[in-house]
Amino acid sequence: MMQSENSVEDSLHIRKLEVTDKEKGFIELLRQLTVCDSVSDEKFKERFEEIAKYGDDHCICVIEDVRSGKIVATGSVFIEKKFVRNCGKAGHIEDVVVDSSARGMQLGKRIVEYLADHAHSMGCYKVILDCTEENRPFYEKCGFKKKEIQMVKYFV
Amino acid sequence: MMQSENSVEDSLHIRKLEVTDKEKGFIELLRQLTVCDSVSDEKFKERFEEIAKYGDDHCICVIEDVRSGKIVATGSVFIEKKFVRNCGKAGHIEDVVVDSSARGMQLGKRIVEYLADHAHSMGCYKVILDCTEENRPFYEKCGFKKKEIQMVKYFV
Repeated sequence: MMQSENSVEDSLHIRKLEVTDKEKGFIELLRQLTVCDSVSDEKFKERFEEIAKYGDDHCICVIEDVRSGKIVATGSVFIEKKFVRNCGKAGHIEDVVVDSSARGMQLGKRIVEYLADHAHSMGCYKVILDCTEENRPFYEKCGFKKKEIQMVKYFV
Repeated sequence: MMQSENSVEDSLHIRKLEVTDKEKGFIELLRQLTVCDSVSDEKFKERFEEIAKYGDDHCICVIEDVRSGKIVATGSVFIEKKFVRNCGKAGHIEDVVVDSSARGMQLGKRIVEYLADHAHSMGCYKVILDCTEENRPFYEKCGFKKKEIQMVKYFV
């Protein structure tokens, strides 16, 4: 059977994070984003369950390449309940990363669109994220506009 | 009795939001920040209870001027549970506002420090917020540094 471009894309399944994704390279993928030491199975399960308690208010999505059984992209969004905007809700997108071997296939765009759609379906009036100036053109292609600046205070 | 500066500051009590704060001008205060129509008592109570379910993971603090019984400053922080940073946590500060009649008394700083301390005590490795370039010097005085840019997508 001929391997067409379609069949490659067909093997890239987007879905919510499952507890078995640790075995599929989820933590190694996050390591391409920021500091992330190896996490024990127990600690992973505990954090997975803590997040699962929030239900649709905290959604982590992944793209699995079902040919290799590896997670090749991920991102998360959580829904903040506010009093402003008439008791509105805001979606916060965090920790978007695409595996270095899987770049150029629009996987980042699929992740961000999935997360933004989730926030929209949850009734958010907006979805926000912080990124480097370098990643701004990517997020503009995803329909985002620059608004404010991000400030940070580290405790460690 | 002489009204000293101390007694004015003594009357400004910082604490967590209570459901009765709606009657103390909490919504009117938020209106100085962004769009916030009048909220029914029922809707306010419903949202208050939704947020209360998160316990210490979503903390809204207020400063009440006990002389007038009015809420004169507020801000919120919620704790995001992550997998990165060895299953770390990040605090997100949102919706900080000081009543226009109560500026110049460092109430904003008290609010931000209260929220950052809360995030720290909850085990966060960092606390972040988005603000305008105009408000950057204020947050620098609170110990924050500029990091990234904020991108937004509105649904309404």
